[in-house]
Amino acid sequence: MTKINLNLEDARDLANRCLKHNGCDNANAAAAADRMIEAERDGCASHGLFRLPWYVSGVKSGRVNGQARPRVTQLAPAVIGVDGDGGFAPLGQKIAHDALVGCARAQGIAAVALTNMFHIAAMWPEVEDLANEGLCAMAMTASYPYVAPAGGIKALYGTNPIGFAWPRRDAPPLVFDQASSAMARGEIQIAARDGRPVPITAGIGPKGEATTDPNVVLKGAQLGFGGYKGAALAMMVELLAGPLIGEMLSFEAAKDDAGRGGPPKGGEFILAMDPALFGDPEGFLDHGERLIAEILAQEGTRLPGARRLEQRQKTPQAGITIPQSLYQEITELLA
Amino acid sequence: MTKINLNLEDARDLANRCLKHNGCDNANAAAAADRMIEAERDGCASHGLFRLPWYVSGVKSGRVNGQARPRVTQLAPAVIGVDGDGGFAPLGQKIAHDALVGCARAQGIAAVALTNMFHIAAMWPEVEDLANEGLCAMAMTASYPYVAPAGGIKALYGTNPIGFAWPRRDAPPLVFDQASSAMARGEIQIAARDGRPVPITAGIGPKGEATTDPNVVLKGAQLGFGGYKGAALAMMVELLAGPLIGEMLSFEAAKDDAGRGGPPKGGEFILAMDPALFGDPEGFLDHGERLIAEILAQEGTRLPGARRLEQRQKTPQAGITIPQSLYQEITELLA
Repeated sequence: MTKINLNLEDARDLANRCLKHNGCDNANAAAAADRMIEAERDGCASHGLFRLPWYVSGVKSGRVNGQARPRVTQLAPAVIGVDGDGGFAPLGQKIAHDALVGCARAQGIAAVALTNMFHIAAMWPEVEDLANEGLCAMAMTASYPYVAPAGGIKALYGTNPIGFAWPRRDAPPLVFDQASSAMARGEIQIAARDGRPVPITAGIGPKGEATTDPNVVLKGAQLGFGGYKGAALAMMVELLAGPLIGEMLSFEAAKDDAGRGGPPKGGEFILAMDPALFGDPEGFLDHGERLIAEILAQEGTRLPGARRLEQRQKTPQAGITIPQSLYQEITELLA
Repeated sequence: MTKINLNLEDARDLANRCLKHNGCDNANAAAAADRMIEAERDGCASHGLFRLPWYVSGVKSGRVNGQARPRVTQLAPAVIGVDGDGGFAPLGQKIAHDALVGCARAQGIAAVALTNMFHIAAMWPEVEDLANEGLCAMAMTASYPYVAPAGGIKALYGTNPIGFAWPRRDAPPLVFDQASSAMARGEIQIAARDGRPVPITAGIGPKGEATTDPNVVLKGAQLGFGGYKGAALAMMVELLAGPLIGEMLSFEAAKDDAGRGGPPKGGEFILAMDPALFGDPEGFLDHGERLIAEILAQEGTRLPGARRLEQRQKTPQAGITIPQSLYQEITELLA
């Protein structure tokens, strides 16, 4: 596969122009382009420019609002509602971030109910942004029905990731963002594309049969990580990122989509806490570092997100590479 | 093993008298006895009267304060601190519950930092109590170093459970309370006692070697459920139930205990949200029921906690059974 190299600013400009050329206004295009380039910067191509044609098709079909004006509502002293106005998630998330930081610093803990948005992508950027403000953050989102409930065989829950970030002293935040399923949906799709088997724990076939064939899992159901415990987390995420915030459950989102495809509609639950307003305002940062030192003192360990941080050091100089075919596709969307 | 049957009120009275006879005042004894009997009522013997001699030895040795007066501090508008005054957890939890319910209903979301308490037991009672008030709740606690970090082989994290509860319409709350480790510590100890192997995923030996021998796991380290993902959750719980709230990390608790044994000292992080102050005040209960109906529509599924609720129907009439030897031991503690 022929690849081409772009520096980060050119890549950002490309995404930005492409979105604006296809129906996004400045604010919506910039927010979406920034999120894609953050992903590329950190070596996470599956959330990078790869998504751009899909975003464009969402706006062009009229399903996604490229002129979205997310609206902030103070639902309670420590709860903020952000209605994404049917646009892509990044602009709503940006507006939610600013509101949430202020609220968490005033109240000690605060939550955001983000609704009516398209394509909640990886959540590590938003929890990391909050931890860069000195806050501890969690985020959850549902998606489409991919994962069976414990004991069942039919897909009901999304892969339902949980993101978490903890602020550090003199280091980027400690961040993880992991699906409640044994594998991410995309990992199974890639295994299917490449003809590789998946672990027996990844999923089951349509009749509940054990399988390592990714194509059979894609027709059947994925399983929670660690079995019933991951499924319980997926259930929790459905409730928090669905009924609690006032958004669709994964199975409802699939019905709403009605096979039209494109980026899924949904919402996100984000939580931020200011450790300076908890039990150990002076000591919490150093105390967290003592745990991290113990982790890293063991041979073979690394912190979650370490690979992203390594890439982040490299890409500002080295640039990023994308397939020539993707570059061609984007260029045509600019014509 | 000879067993004897007790009705719930007699069992509660026995626990209450035994704690009072051995150094607890009325409030501390009643709170601890109530928690033990709740566990017995729900068929969870490992958190029931089985714990009573251990509690008594904690008070008798002077390590645990049987006259504890937990102190409530409003750390921020949505954050409450409860210092357990070195007593058993149940009294502090009871006081935290009342403060947290009021705060969550006023702020929409609120957290409690419980510290300086002994033996945070199963957490489903406290999250269920909060959901019985119409709130959605989460709870986390660290313990002693039992679980290896991802990639490592030495025990660092506690088994670090996460409890969750969601309020239901016309039914007891949906509740789970699960360790971040593949198995609970007690399950491995019981397998060792009974000479049964444990799954290969449960843990590793002291040199990191794969094993199904529970005795080897007890000398080595447990593993997170689903491998590195469970370990990441255990890390999150350490940070929230440690540095955030201002309590010891699991490895610090082990040093503090210095081999004296008895119930571990520590704290608990509890979160409560009032869905009536989030995005769908009118609809959230019915919306949650729609997810639950979809779960139960699949053959083979059951909700987390279903077994506890079945027992809860039976024990008020049938009473509970405890080993004759335990009854004897308790009776001697009353002499």
